[in-house]
Amino acid sequence: MSIKKVVVAGGGVLGSQIALQTAYCGFDVTIWLRSEGSIERAQPKLERFKNIYVDTLEKMKTDASAYCRGLSKKADLSSEELDALKEQAQNAYDSLKLTTSYEEAAKDADLIIEAISENPEQKIAFYQELAKHMEDKTILVTNSSTLLPSMFAEYTGRPEKYLSLHFANTIWANNTAEVMGHPGTEQKYYDEVVKFAEDINMIPLKLKKEQPGYILNSLLVPFLNAGQALLANDVADHETIDKTWILATGSPAGPFHILDIVGLETAYNIVIMNPESKDPETTPGKIAKMLKEKIDAGETGINAGKGFYEY
Amino acid sequence: MSIKKVVVAGGGVLGSQIALQTAYCGFDVTIWLRSEGSIERAQPKLERFKNIYVDTLEKMKTDASAYCRGLSKKADLSSEELDALKEQAQNAYDSLKLTTSYEEAAKDADLIIEAISENPEQKIAFYQELAKHMEDKTILVTNSSTLLPSMFAEYTGRPEKYLSLHFANTIWANNTAEVMGHPGTEQKYYDEVVKFAEDINMIPLKLKKEQPGYILNSLLVPFLNAGQALLANDVADHETIDKTWILATGSPAGPFHILDIVGLETAYNIVIMNPESKDPETTPGKIAKMLKEKIDAGETGINAGKGFYEY
Repeated sequence: MSIKKVVVAGGGVLGSQIALQTAYCGFDVTIWLRSEGSIERAQPKLERFKNIYVDTLEKMKTDASAYCRGLSKKADLSSEELDALKEQAQNAYDSLKLTTSYEEAAKDADLIIEAISENPEQKIAFYQELAKHMEDKTILVTNSSTLLPSMFAEYTGRPEKYLSLHFANTIWANNTAEVMGHPGTEQKYYDEVVKFAEDINMIPLKLKKEQPGYILNSLLVPFLNAGQALLANDVADHETIDKTWILATGSPAGPFHILDIVGLETAYNIVIMNPESKDPETTPGKIAKMLKEKIDAGETGINAGKGFYEY
Repeated sequence: MSIKKVVVAGGGVLGSQIALQTAYCGFDVTIWLRSEGSIERAQPKLERFKNIYVDTLEKMKTDASAYCRGLSKKADLSSEELDALKEQAQNAYDSLKLTTSYEEAAKDADLIIEAISENPEQKIAFYQELAKHMEDKTILVTNSSTLLPSMFAEYTGRPEKYLSLHFANTIWANNTAEVMGHPGTEQKYYDEVVKFAEDINMIPLKLKKEQPGYILNSLLVPFLNAGQALLANDVADHETIDKTWILATGSPAGPFHILDIVGLETAYNIVIMNPESKDPETTPGKIAKMLKEKIDAGETGINAGKGFYEY
């Protein structure tokens, strides 16, 4: 089969980016949203991202460091080619269809990308309703970061055509897409999704089996925990810990700079999933306390202008 | 006090580098070795490292990327300055005194850097004998990677003047030095060691308390374990895991490239310290099996020409 019509369900930060990126790469894109209110909230996001695409492409004319692989697999582009891509971004934005109708969204859809909130009950209700309208050919993927496709496969009416396609924020620049099936996913649909990811300028990162946290968070969470444990136990200050990692590995950032990017609320939500975090004498308990104090002070990371560092 | 005479005990890879680097930075350096045989084995290492210093300094005349901060805190050096440093390296090498005598080594020593093998019994015997000869003023540090200074403080006869100063391999390039006391270390001697580290062109990384693995290995071991767990559980192949980390964090290397640098024997020795590694059904057991197979095949990392990657 060949994927032509793509539906993105959800108009949040990631949903908007996925929809625009997919349209930019030539697909017919419909965004499904829960309500007229959701449509109103999605529109300014879509416009903002479209403007980022256009501005970045303009900048690429004179500044090689502005290059984003999500905008073009080819790095060295002429001014004319960049103007054509700017037009392509505008046309993609203009072409987006927004609807609250399951029926309209699902009609003739080759691929539906679910990017609604990380709430299992809402996802189940969405899949159950969607299943009534999807055509037999439709492949369904979830962008969920924290939930596993095996939790939902039975509600989709098409477990063999259901899997995860997990994007990173600012997908035009951070253009990785982790592809992960559940035990019932059929290989041919997995392969179709890998090809689709490539077709929308993503770098597919293939998981061979289901894994909570995919690859990236499976590496990042223990690494960030280790850094936080050193600080919470007062072994060293956060600048020293970051400096150690940067000097030893040549990485551009240590754990505390990464935590500021991720956001301290997210880090806090991860640590409190550990039952030990309730005991203030344990390392998870000390980490939770440390993060809570910073969150209460409004120091939640880069977006707040201050986290472990000031920005 | 002012540190003038420095003794390095041990002529292994790190001991040789520490001795040469310390002499290069203007200190009076004596290397203590256990036997005449050890002296014979140390000499070619010292010569090899001296040649690396001279060659690197020569290369720095025409290639800015050859710059190593251990060789000069200042990066932009004239050809004349570099020639002077080459002479300084040769003079440092010529100035090194090698002895098997505790008495000769300890006489008037301001600082003794213990870099003998990672064997607690050998370290205790060494400290006990050394304690008979050290003058009151002498500060004693250990370069141990895996053992804690509190394990040995009582044998040194000077717990308040005893702490860890932990170097990285290829110290002229990887010029970090983790400084870590035990609960009985006095702050003023800690500070003296920090200053000494700076004086030999190291970047001191200060730990406020004792921590197994210091800062770097406290971050690196959980990170490498997480990567190995993904591979041993067949979640993804090693190239995909490395690629994910590199793309997401901008780091130059992922866990498997780092494992090849560290060496698979070291990784194996770390994993088998975990009792779970004896059970092949557990993740540590699977990691141990995976590493053992590669080690048995001679694929132990970069030094062997092959580890997870070919070199």
